[in-house]
Amino acid sequence: MKVIKVNLKERSYDIIVGHNLLALSGRYLSSLKIGNSAYIITNSLIKIKYGNILERSLRKHGIASRFKLIPDSEKSKSLSIASSVIRDLARYDNRKKVFVIAFGGGVAGDLAGFVSSIYKRGVPYVQIPTTLLAQVDSSIGGKTAVDLAEAKNLAGSFYQPKMVLSDVKLLSSLNKRQIGAGLAEVIKYGIIRDKNLFSYLEKNMPKILALKRGALEYIVYACGKIKADIVSKDEREKKGMRTILNFGHTAAHAIEAACGYGKYNHGEAVGLGMLVASGISDKIGLLKPGMPARIEKIIKTAGLPTKISNVPLTKIISAHYRDKKFIGSKNRFVLLRDIGRTKILCDVPLALIKKEIKARF
Amino acid sequence: MKVIKVNLKERSYDIIVGHNLLALSGRYLSSLKIGNSAYIITNSLIKIKYGNILERSLRKHGIASRFKLIPDSEKSKSLSIASSVIRDLARYDNRKKVFVIAFGGGVAGDLAGFVSSIYKRGVPYVQIPTTLLAQVDSSIGGKTAVDLAEAKNLAGSFYQPKMVLSDVKLLSSLNKRQIGAGLAEVIKYGIIRDKNLFSYLEKNMPKILALKRGALEYIVYACGKIKADIVSKDEREKKGMRTILNFGHTAAHAIEAACGYGKYNHGEAVGLGMLVASGISDKIGLLKPGMPARIEKIIKTAGLPTKISNVPLTKIISAHYRDKKFIGSKNRFVLLRDIGRTKILCDVPLALIKKEIKARF
Repeated sequence: MKVIKVNLKERSYDIIVGHNLLALSGRYLSSLKIGNSAYIITNSLIKIKYGNILERSLRKHGIASRFKLIPDSEKSKSLSIASSVIRDLARYDNRKKVFVIAFGGGVAGDLAGFVSSIYKRGVPYVQIPTTLLAQVDSSIGGKTAVDLAEAKNLAGSFYQPKMVLSDVKLLSSLNKRQIGAGLAEVIKYGIIRDKNLFSYLEKNMPKILALKRGALEYIVYACGKIKADIVSKDEREKKGMRTILNFGHTAAHAIEAACGYGKYNHGEAVGLGMLVASGISDKIGLLKPGMPARIEKIIKTAGLPTKISNVPLTKIISAHYRDKKFIGSKNRFVLLRDIGRTKILCDVPLALIKKEIKARF
Repeated sequence: MKVIKVNLKERSYDIIVGHNLLALSGRYLSSLKIGNSAYIITNSLIKIKYGNILERSLRKHGIASRFKLIPDSEKSKSLSIASSVIRDLARYDNRKKVFVIAFGGGVAGDLAGFVSSIYKRGVPYVQIPTTLLAQVDSSIGGKTAVDLAEAKNLAGSFYQPKMVLSDVKLLSSLNKRQIGAGLAEVIKYGIIRDKNLFSYLEKNMPKILALKRGALEYIVYACGKIKADIVSKDEREKKGMRTILNFGHTAAHAIEAACGYGKYNHGEAVGLGMLVASGISDKIGLLKPGMPARIEKIIKTAGLPTKISNVPLTKIISAHYRDKKFIGSKNRFVLLRDIGRTKILCDVPLALIKKEIKARF
């Protein structure tokens, strides 16, 4: 078991990474002294698989609980679902000291975080991520959001959890595609910040795909440390540091939006987006020779798609224009010089963006 | 023109109090450098009366604008209206640097503040309050909220504006009932914090009710100063200081909820709530003799009701139980020792609360 500290003054918290932590969750959460009634936002599959373990451990440490099931779909990230969850929470929260547990992947995390941030102007919440994507990325840093018809994550908040419990044992039930989705973000961390992690991935992908405990603990811890460090320095994405986490995400969001968030999951779109960003970096002479191929290879090894199909290019471009990463009238791309060395560029020519997206068809 | 500073480190801002400030709004807002496109959330009446003045002044200083009209009703404070406003804002915000103006009373302020706090995880907003209630209270301090069926202000955030422009000239079109609603909060400030203000009110109520410019500037400035001071010390209502602003509000919220937010407006309910709180303070021997009568007199002079009618007592009591001012299983009342001296008491016996509410029938 390892602990990573996210340093944000009075909003600081620990990320606990380990194996079989869920069975000890009651001990961890009761030590936070944030309440005696847990409102657990999750989906039915997670509840069936792991609900008992969580509930029992909480009860053992004097914490009552109630499960709130939401569909395991991006559609759950809506203001109307948030509204119905808040109303249910208000009915549960009858003279209790309540806190929220986000128990699931990115959808449960984003929704539960958002609900916690606005219910009574903020109640405490903790993250118990159950997917690789959530453990290495979305559960850390307090970005919460729901989608609107106009764009993904259009409404949300910066609202930090009181703890993140990353139990890699929970990853054992994930399928290859779910693991791949998380690996896209793991690869991203390597590319933007950590040569050692990138080399580790190049050497150990089979172990990771076989869900070996040691390999999972290594990558979850390595990514958690990078993200915690960046978030600690730039909580609200104001200083440009946190911006590098968006490597691959500008094109990814456009691809997801153009496909109606169905065909490609977030990680797959990020994989494609990283290829677009590394292509642009290469074309403008920023990126070291040989790197685009190395990046494409690791993405392929992780089982992620490297080609886009059955989506009109024009749809991706127009979705790109609506992306919130436009500041004023400028687009903003996180580009690459080398593994671990990024450069943020504004006003990348549209023709170049188009060309690199097209190269993925 | 007078300036009050709200000190909250990087979230600090000015409250400008004066006469005919709206005509200069463009100058004030452009100096903030928060954007070149203003999304103005208001109601149709305000737009008809004052929209041109605001729009012209903004344009003169290089700020484009768009009006978003919402019904002037507590019903506008809902997640579904917030959702439709955000979607409209997203369509307006096409490659612009946008900020929000809350232009109206408490409803516009609470909704616009909430929308600003969650749209793209936070965009800048300013308050241009047009009612006495909003100028002395709700526009200052960054409390934003929408209502849910279960309770008022159940979802919201702490999100500070970048400026508050309080133009007392805008108050000249308010009717007696609207002025009374604001005066309830003015009286509250006097009672909880400022003997001089309380004496001023006892002597100058006719001038205030006649909407004399000097009297309005005096009370808006005095209240703004008190609220700014309290908010600066206890932004998120964690240290108990901001709690005293809830004087009269525990019973007020129950009265409003029991009446379905129609019969009594917020200020009228606060007037009644202050009478309940001063009654409880008196019965437990906390409050100086003679004070309940003085408080009742000033509330009456302001044209506010001192009696409740046509609402079942049981409905008020059950609404009281759902109030979010319950912490854990305890109620929490702001009570009074003397003008300017409060005491927060937990677990006030229900029988006593009932008795004092009953005394208002």
